[in-house]
Amino acid sequence: MDLLSIKEPTFLKECSNKDLEDLAEEIRSFLIKNLSSTGGHLGPNLGVVELTLVLHQLFESPKDKFIWDVGHQAYVHKILTGRAGQFDKLRQYQGLCGFPKRSESIHDVWETGHSSTSLSAAMGMALARDLKGTDESVIPVIGDGALTGGMALEALNHIGHEQTDMVVILNDNEMSIAPNVGAINTMLGRMRTAGKYQRAKDDLEMLIKKIPAFGGRLAATAERVKDSLKYLLVSGMFFEELGFTYLGPVDGHDLEDLKSNITYANKTKGPVLVHVITKKGKGYAPAENDAKGTWHGLGPYKIESGEVVKKPGPPSYSGVFANTLKRIAKDDKRVVAITAAMPGGTKLDTFAAEFPDRMYDVGIAEQHATTMSAGLATQGMKPVFAVYSTFLQRGYDQLVHDVCRQNLNVFFAVDRAGLVGADGETHQGVFDISYLRHLPNMKILNPKDENELQHMIYTGVMHDDGPIAVRYPRGGGFGVKMDEELKQIPLGEWEVLKEGSDLSILTFGTMIPVAMEAAEQLEKKGINVEIVNARSIKPLDDAKLTELAKQERPVLTLEETALLGGFGSAVLEYFHENHFHSMVVERMGIPDRYIEHGSVPQLLEEIGLTSQNVASAVEQMLPRKRQRA
Amino acid sequence: MDLLSIKEPTFLKECSNKDLEDLAEEIRSFLIKNLSSTGGHLGPNLGVVELTLVLHQLFESPKDKFIWDVGHQAYVHKILTGRAGQFDKLRQYQGLCGFPKRSESIHDVWETGHSSTSLSAAMGMALARDLKGTDESVIPVIGDGALTGGMALEALNHIGHEQTDMVVILNDNEMSIAPNVGAINTMLGRMRTAGKYQRAKDDLEMLIKKIPAFGGRLAATAERVKDSLKYLLVSGMFFEELGFTYLGPVDGHDLEDLKSNITYANKTKGPVLVHVITKKGKGYAPAENDAKGTWHGLGPYKIESGEVVKKPGPPSYSGVFANTLKRIAKDDKRVVAITAAMPGGTKLDTFAAEFPDRMYDVGIAEQHATTMSAGLATQGMKPVFAVYSTFLQRGYDQLVHDVCRQNLNVFFAVDRAGLVGADGETHQGVFDISYLRHLPNMKILNPKDENELQHMIYTGVMHDDGPIAVRYPRGGGFGVKMDEELKQIPLGEWEVLKEGSDLSILTFGTMIPVAMEAAEQLEKKGINVEIVNARSIKPLDDAKLTELAKQERPVLTLEETALLGGFGSAVLEYFHENHFHSMVVERMGIPDRYIEHGSVPQLLEEIGLTSQNVASAVEQMLPRKRQRA
Repeated sequence: MDLLSIKEPTFLKECSNKDLEDLAEEIRSFLIKNLSSTGGHLGPNLGVVELTLVLHQLFESPKDKFIWDVGHQAYVHKILTGRAGQFDKLRQYQGLCGFPKRSESIHDVWETGHSSTSLSAAMGMALARDLKGTDESVIPVIGDGALTGGMALEALNHIGHEQTDMVVILNDNEMSIAPNVGAINTMLGRMRTAGKYQRAKDDLEMLIKKIPAFGGRLAATAERVKDSLKYLLVSGMFFEELGFTYLGPVDGHDLEDLKSNITYANKTKGPVLVHVITKKGKGYAPAENDAKGTWHGLGPYKIESGEVVKKPGPPSYSGVFANTLKRIAKDDKRVVAITAAMPGGTKLDTFAAEFPDRMYDVGIAEQHATTMSAGLATQGMKPVFAVYSTFLQRGYDQLVHDVCRQNLNVFFAVDRAGLVGADGETHQGVFDISYLRHLPNMKILNPKDENELQHMIYTGVMHDDGPIAVRYPRGGGFGVKMDEELKQIPLGEWEVLKEGSDLSILTFGTMIPVAMEAAEQLEKKGINVEIVNARSIKPLDDAKLTELAKQERPVLTLEETALLGGFGSAVLEYFHENHFHSMVVERMGIPDRYIEHGSVPQLLEEIGLTSQNVASAVEQMLPRKRQRA
Repeated sequence: MDLLSIKEPTFLKECSNKDLEDLAEEIRSFLIKNLSSTGGHLGPNLGVVELTLVLHQLFESPKDKFIWDVGHQAYVHKILTGRAGQFDKLRQYQGLCGFPKRSESIHDVWETGHSSTSLSAAMGMALARDLKGTDESVIPVIGDGALTGGMALEALNHIGHEQTDMVVILNDNEMSIAPNVGAINTMLGRMRTAGKYQRAKDDLEMLIKKIPAFGGRLAATAERVKDSLKYLLVSGMFFEELGFTYLGPVDGHDLEDLKSNITYANKTKGPVLVHVITKKGKGYAPAENDAKGTWHGLGPYKIESGEVVKKPGPPSYSGVFANTLKRIAKDDKRVVAITAAMPGGTKLDTFAAEFPDRMYDVGIAEQHATTMSAGLATQGMKPVFAVYSTFLQRGYDQLVHDVCRQNLNVFFAVDRAGLVGADGETHQGVFDISYLRHLPNMKILNPKDENELQHMIYTGVMHDDGPIAVRYPRGGGFGVKMDEELKQIPLGEWEVLKEGSDLSILTFGTMIPVAMEAAEQLEKKGINVEIVNARSIKPLDDAKLTELAKQERPVLTLEETALLGGFGSAVLEYFHENHFHSMVVERMGIPDRYIEHGSVPQLLEEIGLTSQNVASAVEQMLPRKRQRA
């Protein structure tokens, strides 16, 4: 059938298994073809084609509620709910979002991007249902990687306790982005190979019948053996202990197996966990054979060869981070690296290759990673937690309470700081200055290029007076010459990149080239602005700020982060705290709203962080300055 | 023996069980007596007397590392490490801290206050040990309540996977502060009654021997029965599945039982969990028979009668919150209340008494509580999550990603906002404005008294345009007259409490009386300040700020919260964003450091947030204003 003609998933009710199989094949071809030009989360979606078809056949969306954990596996759901025609603009500016989006469709009842939220959201929806006395089904679909995030475990504990009706689909593909780690994953592995509950149960009942009767003290134990049927069957014990009925393992590519188990689950009182085994990348050999997570989410690729189209360019910031850290770790045995399920993205996989005993992948567990780093630091180690800006949000209390309060030498390598582009509003790294800056003892640096990054990595390791964060953006550097020798960047010391006396632009990182361009435009109009690399965000460069104040020079702050509580606010705080009340200061940055997906240049244009706007902001500031003088 | 003479715990090595029993009794008397005048966490400490004695006898602190989760149960540890003499100033200004404190003793290797951090910290210390090749033991002591915090579960998952040597003491007293909830707690209940591993194992082996041999398909199942010995024994399966060796249940008041199990655990390779059953309040009848958590932590009491000394006074803010919510919930069926293990502290226990189906205690699980609230809101409910300012820190990413991003109508009742006093630096609620203010869609209110609080609770429930937080302090109100009718407080509208034209003090909540006092002092010097109840922290009152700017009136902002990114910064941001660059603005608030324990007036004095300082800040600002004019 023509996928583009699908408006609603209701047609699935009439489909035979053969129809569904055909549809599955079409959907796979559609995804493989479309994503080869747009990029996207191919692997996860190829894995859930049959599962999504069955869910939409058995349930009535949006009355029944599907909650896609993380949400990168919702493409099939998007196709079945009338959005196939928008896949040519997947993850592009003003195009289809890569995650569920309530404004796109009534079938998207919950938005995601970060992992491990689905069970809590589902619990809220199920409790609301029970209070209102309605009868819809609530079906969170959660991966085995997301399941071990602390929040999901908190939710299991609560849902099992309340015995709320809910069908949890555990989509077990043995991967997060990278292969999963953790004891729960090992346990799921045992379950996968353990065979099915029902079959074992039959066998066991026969076996139990053959056990002779006992008297005396043994009688009680024998009774417990019989009572403990479930315990013998091993498979779902972990979940049964938590109050869930466990069904599985179910073959996630076998329509009948899926249908019978999910139907049974939906009829069962209380919470049920259906353990569905899927194959990430199913149906497309390059993605199926992917051990490193390359095909989890990627850019364009060549369909026939499975060759990923790589844009040539300078090394990525993440790569420079990891290479520098390796270089330092050779001589400095204190250095250990930590990631929360992002060994590839942070490039710490290369560190692990060289120092396998000194890299810890804790799984999706940013809280644990943060406080474990603090524990390492108490023993004189130098833990380096490499984490995306958006995911460190999950360690905020651990930053406040464990790291900063105890003033421990933990080094946060804050990757993907600033706008990230196609992943959109759930992933933009725009809040970290606002949530880190007010923490006592914390220091924050941001390099202007990959060469300065390597020095800051060295600085971060050498810093021995509490926590420090070095934030750097997604993507490649500028291809600048890399210094051979590593040196420390002094905290609280900025760098003048361009002289000029009419006004000073205080900026850092990605906004420096924008400021430079603006300065060129202004120069043609006879306006000379100073450009300062304000690389030390906390502490600020007090001497420079005092100098600016004494010159009564207007100041424009420019940052690719949230304006509220951001770098520009820090500058305002400084001037007023030091009684420089008449400073003309304007701030440019990210306004007080969430920024959707698109390419970074498109988003900067939308927000107004362009060289033209910077130049015109400067022009508007200057006459005022002159009036005052 | 004289507890005051103890300098180091080494003397315990020579103690017989009889000695330890005598010591236990002395310690209990000491605690009951001392805390009757200072107050403190009596119940938790009476429960761990034998456990702490045994730990200090078996291990060598500080080489071996005790990590006390939450830390309120470390009083016995403090006595045994030479701090008995400081208990007269427990939790008082510059006196003994109520939690472990590294600056107090080399035996405090990790500081706490918030729950569920011990396993992650221990893992960091244990990994450091293994890298350095030393052989110390690492012994986290965690309660059954703290165990279900997501972070602790993340840590179990990681520790079990890495098979790191560690002795985890699960101090199971069936309580957090209130009785525990959650599926894991139910499971621990089964374990408590299930008897011990070893005895059951012996029985089982006899039993298995009697099972006849099988052939064919049954043979495999029979084999699994034999392999699955552990599974039959039920008790520790949950932990065994996670890769831990489970030992228990152990009687936490039986010295021999404790010693033999902990010794065995310490010899065992890999992580071991020793399940110790203790009785909160053990040895003091009023505390033993406490079901509501009154004796968890409390102020002074009368030893003989167990009567808690209550200071008479106006109703607490928490009480007014809960009463108002009950009143509204009678007519508004959308209202549901959520707590994370704080039914008593938030006074939601009274709500639960009236609306048992509409109050959810999710246990120590702020992440889950936040996102579950978001889920409820998607279905048109009006979830009210009552949470201490310091604990909402743990829901920061859920605020960013789930609540604010989806602009859902979740109402956060942020209790214990501002300084909290005796609990000290881990519990001060001074960051919430800084971490909430930069979140798009969030609104923040703060009442001046309990009457305004009731209106703000009503406002929070009626607000239908996204998330809203109403923050209020610990303790009692002023005893003001309560309006009979509830009304909505308009967002973005401040209230002039006192007219005055020389300068405006913009302040809110607890700082209003301080400002009023300062105004009186200034009046005597002929200085007239305006005092504004800046109750709407986000949005600000733009009209009022614009008016102030047009009058070029100096502004002093005054807040009992962190200065960095706080309310005063919001005011600065407003003026500069609107090109009012010449405003004289000074900010008073909490400086960029952690504030230790003490009474709130003492702490305010230390920080300088007094009426005298406010008055003198105003005086210093005015001449500058006049010079400029």
